[in-house]
Amino acid sequence: MDYQQILDTIHDEMSYRDVKGKVASYIPELAKIDRKKFGMHVYCGDKQHFCFGDSKENFSIQSISKVFTLAMAMRLMGEDLWDRVDVEPSGDPFNSLTQLEYESGIPRNPFINAGALVISDILVDQLDDPKKELLEFVRHITGDPDIDYDKTVAASEKATGYRNIALVNYIKALGNIKCDVEPIVDFYFHQCSLAMSCEDLSKAFMIFANRGRLLDTDEKILKPKTVKRINALMQTCGFYDEAGEFSFQVGLPGKSGVGGGIVAIHPKNYSVAVWSPILNEKGNSELGMKALERFTTLTGVSVF
Amino acid sequence: MDYQQILDTIHDEMSYRDVKGKVASYIPELAKIDRKKFGMHVYCGDKQHFCFGDSKENFSIQSISKVFTLAMAMRLMGEDLWDRVDVEPSGDPFNSLTQLEYESGIPRNPFINAGALVISDILVDQLDDPKKELLEFVRHITGDPDIDYDKTVAASEKATGYRNIALVNYIKALGNIKCDVEPIVDFYFHQCSLAMSCEDLSKAFMIFANRGRLLDTDEKILKPKTVKRINALMQTCGFYDEAGEFSFQVGLPGKSGVGGGIVAIHPKNYSVAVWSPILNEKGNSELGMKALERFTTLTGVSVF
Amino acid sequence: MDYQQILDTIHDEMSYRDVKGKVASYIPELAKIDRKKFGMHVYCGDKQHFCFGDSKENFSIQSISKVFTLAMAMRLMGEDLWDRVDVEPSGDPFNSLTQLEYESGIPRNPFINAGALVISDILVDQLDDPKKELLEFVRHITGDPDIDYDKTVAASEKATGYRNIALVNYIKALGNIKCDVEPIVDFYFHQCSLAMSCEDLSKAFMIFANRGRLLDTDEKILKPKTVKRINALMQTCGFYDEAGEFSFQVGLPGKSGVGGGIVAIHPKNYSVAVWSPILNEKGNSELGMKALERFTTLTGVSVF
Amino acid sequence: MDYQQILDTIHDEMSYRDVKGKVASYIPELAKIDRKKFGMHVYCGDKQHFCFGDSKENFSIQSISKVFTLAMAMRLMGEDLWDRVDVEPSGDPFNSLTQLEYESGIPRNPFINAGALVISDILVDQLDDPKKELLEFVRHITGDPDIDYDKTVAASEKATGYRNIALVNYIKALGNIKCDVEPIVDFYFHQCSLAMSCEDLSKAFMIFANRGRLLDTDEKILKPKTVKRINALMQTCGFYDEAGEFSFQVGLPGKSGVGGGIVAIHPKNYSVAVWSPILNEKGNSELGMKALERFTTLTGVSVF
Repeated sequence: MDYQQILDTIHDEMSYRDVKGKVASYIPELAKIDRKKFGMHVYCGDKQHFCFGDSKENFSIQSISKVFTLAMAMRLMGEDLWDRVDVEPSGDPFNSLTQLEYESGIPRNPFINAGALVISDILVDQLDDPKKELLEFVRHITGDPDIDYDKTVAASEKATGYRNIALVNYIKALGNIKCDVEPIVDFYFHQCSLAMSCEDLSKAFMIFANRGRLLDTDEKILKPKTVKRINALMQTCGFYDEAGEFSFQVGLPGKSGVGGGIVAIHPKNYSVAVWSPILNEKGNSELGMKALERFTTLTGVSVF
Repeated sequence: MDYQQILDTIHDEMSYRDVKGKVASYIPELAKIDRKKFGMHVYCGDKQHFCFGDSKENFSIQSISKVFTLAMAMRLMGEDLWDRVDVEPSGDPFNSLTQLEYESGIPRNPFINAGALVISDILVDQLDDPKKELLEFVRHITGDPDIDYDKTVAASEKATGYRNIALVNYIKALGNIKCDVEPIVDFYFHQCSLAMSCEDLSKAFMIFANRGRLLDTDEKILKPKTVKRINALMQTCGFYDEAGEFSFQVGLPGKSGVGGGIVAIHPKNYSVAVWSPILNEKGNSELGMKALERFTTLTGVSVF
Repeated sequence: MDYQQILDTIHDEMSYRDVKGKVASYIPELAKIDRKKFGMHVYCGDKQHFCFGDSKENFSIQSISKVFTLAMAMRLMGEDLWDRVDVEPSGDPFNSLTQLEYESGIPRNPFINAGALVISDILVDQLDDPKKELLEFVRHITGDPDIDYDKTVAASEKATGYRNIALVNYIKALGNIKCDVEPIVDFYFHQCSLAMSCEDLSKAFMIFANRGRLLDTDEKILKPKTVKRINALMQTCGFYDEAGEFSFQVGLPGKSGVGGGIVAIHPKNYSVAVWSPILNEKGNSELGMKALERFTTLTGVSVF
Repeated sequence: MDYQQILDTIHDEMSYRDVKGKVASYIPELAKIDRKKFGMHVYCGDKQHFCFGDSKENFSIQSISKVFTLAMAMRLMGEDLWDRVDVEPSGDPFNSLTQLEYESGIPRNPFINAGALVISDILVDQLDDPKKELLEFVRHITGDPDIDYDKTVAASEKATGYRNIALVNYIKALGNIKCDVEPIVDFYFHQCSLAMSCEDLSKAFMIFANRGRLLDTDEKILKPKTVKRINALMQTCGFYDEAGEFSFQVGLPGKSGVGGGIVAIHPKNYSVAVWSPILNEKGNSELGMKALERFTTLTGVSVF
């Protein structure tokens, strides 16, 4: 069975009607999304790619952007980054303040909000124009010069993002934020608003399946060790409070976002992105999880 | 033994040399205070008053101001206020965020920072010019038109007050803050910067020892029930993590501030204020606690 | 209005029909109690006493017993006791394990279960036959030789008291329990099972209203300083998660139990006990709280 | 480079002198171990095996035993097991009670102590003689009939295991323990005392690298889905507070114990066990971690 057949099978078998969750509603812009949307895209090591459904439609990638900013911060700081943020699973819902209180402002990992905000601080501190450079980075690794922030989403998040603003101020009080609060959260809300398609995401994440190199040009974007670190982090911390379940069901390193996107990679083999905006109670795409589980079952490839 | 003799005895017996704590240093302005400062003032129900030392010198009243703003908020909202803030001891250090996470943004009491910031929100929401009205309130109950904010202290707190800004944003995310964050913390940092003397404070707190009425004019400032509520709160929650110890040692309702001031009242009898900027490890004036313990012992009056 | 008139007024005004809570059900023996029970007893400094309703009927005093064991432990250890248990309000529900984890096994105060179990450890360690000596102590201060443990209640608590057994083991792991677990919990479950009436309790607690002396013989049972300490603790920590509310509503030091009893004292004046087994959601007698509030209002005596 | 060469390289390069941690001391029996001990054993899918050092010497496998009891419990209950214990990383030190308090007695995963004790409860509930059956299971999958409990270690753990006894009682209070406390902890302390060598462990864990079948006889011990679940759990939760770091450094599913043993598997390829009793501050074997990192680097096989 080839990849396209497998994708067609998944598309036939599954529908938004089978899942009961809700679309994210914490900002008005996300709540407007049509719950019927469903798309998937696979990008292979041999440059072939396969897709179905709404795979070319842009959506808000939200927390998936944390993988891009982590990659940029590791290019700047290497392993020194781990003085500012830890690499262990969180064990608490993704927005908890409690752990910081007992761990001196060092977030548990770069994928919980606290950790991603420390990463934002690093980029704001070290880059001249972090918003521009993030765009350039993402456009470069996808080869798509049209990728952009969704200004409406960014503004909407900023208007209601009190918890994230609280986090930055709190970590600053604990000594682990250098810059002013305003540019950090401005950058953070912009990165979350990045609008990309499954096709874009699967192509972008090929650098993590291809030891840090662009597939087309073999250009080295990240060191192999950086890729190994990021993949290990996606394996253990990529799915909020559901990392263990995803590790079992899908068995691949990956990252989800509340916009309903999930990307996962199989080192050396492929990168796969799926999108359905209906979320389960842990905040991950319900249909997306099922589709990826089915995908690894049908391809017969599993880490474990 | 009359009150002046008792105060003289305390002044003779005690000295800043006997205590080993440190002056508050979290903002530069407070760290500059001379640790030798020591003053005390008693104001009696029969309008007599007694004092020693630096009792007429202004200092930063800090958290003592929370009693004034609570009184103002209760005049506006009465017992409805308790939908927004609870009346129970905290059990955690005064700046903890943890409890809010499990209690839906309702602070444990109006004297922990979280509670005082909700009170600020109420005053900013309901008053045209809260900073002006607070000044007028304090000037009115002391009869001293010169009481003012210390702008340098207020600015200093604002520049480093990330934890309090975090608190307001966090409580706003949990739905218990109505106004914008900026005017709330601006008001809060101003109230903490109020510069008053022991003489001022003991006169101001006479309304809590005199069933809500000004001693001079018998003007009714607060309802007796409001006074009873505030006094009960000062008894159980007035001393950060040391409320139980103060209740035993001194046995009076009172309130402390990190500027080194403490005020306590004996209903119907007197109001007493003491100031020494050296703090014990719980953040209360070390010499002030001792002086008040000695005072209640020598006067032979104790609640228990 | 004399005390008997006041009690009659309360008895007329109030009824179990006015309250909606439930009788404690965590052990079968307590769940069997008739919810109509309602009694009150006042014992005065001039040896007069007054009562109504079921004031002579025995009930399970439960946590009220913690005041007796604390008194016994303070007679043995004096202020050294505070190396083993703190004197501050808890801020958490009465059975929390969390705080111990961050505070090295030192319970917040002797009235939360963790603290009472450390007190049990001390008595089991220092007394030859702690159960017998507790009975003798209580019989002596009440003058009632018939007071006894309710073996059925004690057995029932032991059969289901996993949380308390967990607490003792946990504190032992943290180094703050000396004896074996079994005799400690056996003693603890027995002390909670003490069966006493409002009349007994009000007489027993007169030692806290009478500076540590028996009213009848003037025999000194406790030092005045010990009494002051215990009264301060009852004021700030006597009512689980409702200490602040009780301090405001009633304004007296007191202690409640899940059997529906409450005792409170007015130093030098009186001791008052009330019983109604219907509990509010904080675990205190709903009718008992109201009766005591009414009593302090009608007598016109309030701390604040 | 073949496996024996790789092991020899590791043996040459590394020594107990390079690491500064301490041998476990919480029970006297473990503290007696010679810190020079160092052994490693690899068992391959083609039945070849390789070793160095003290690979045939028995040591206390401690928490590694949790993988065996989990396998037994999954054979009895299948996926229904997850009603009793979750599959997510803990984020807290391995002995925390806090999380249970907010999650209704459902431990975060079967490898933290709370989870392993719930597994013990299941085995004690469903098996006639759980200690005997565990021995038989381990002897069967290793083919070594001499494997046994170390009674001295078991007794030593029981004498000081107050925290684990507290956990069982606490979970029982929360409703997630069925049996009596005594047989559960007796079984638990015995399983931790199992004495096995690196050779034994690497052979036993081949069932997880061989889709649930014994290598010698092809006998089916576990369902492939059970193996996948256990491997995923070892990947995300096998190393206390250091699961993320191990996932990055070694990139294999594995489990460690405070006796200084670590086992890891590479599905379809091999199972590897290493032992050095010197622990890092997270409680994992310091030299063992390094040896495994080096092993996966030299073999060139890594999940990510």
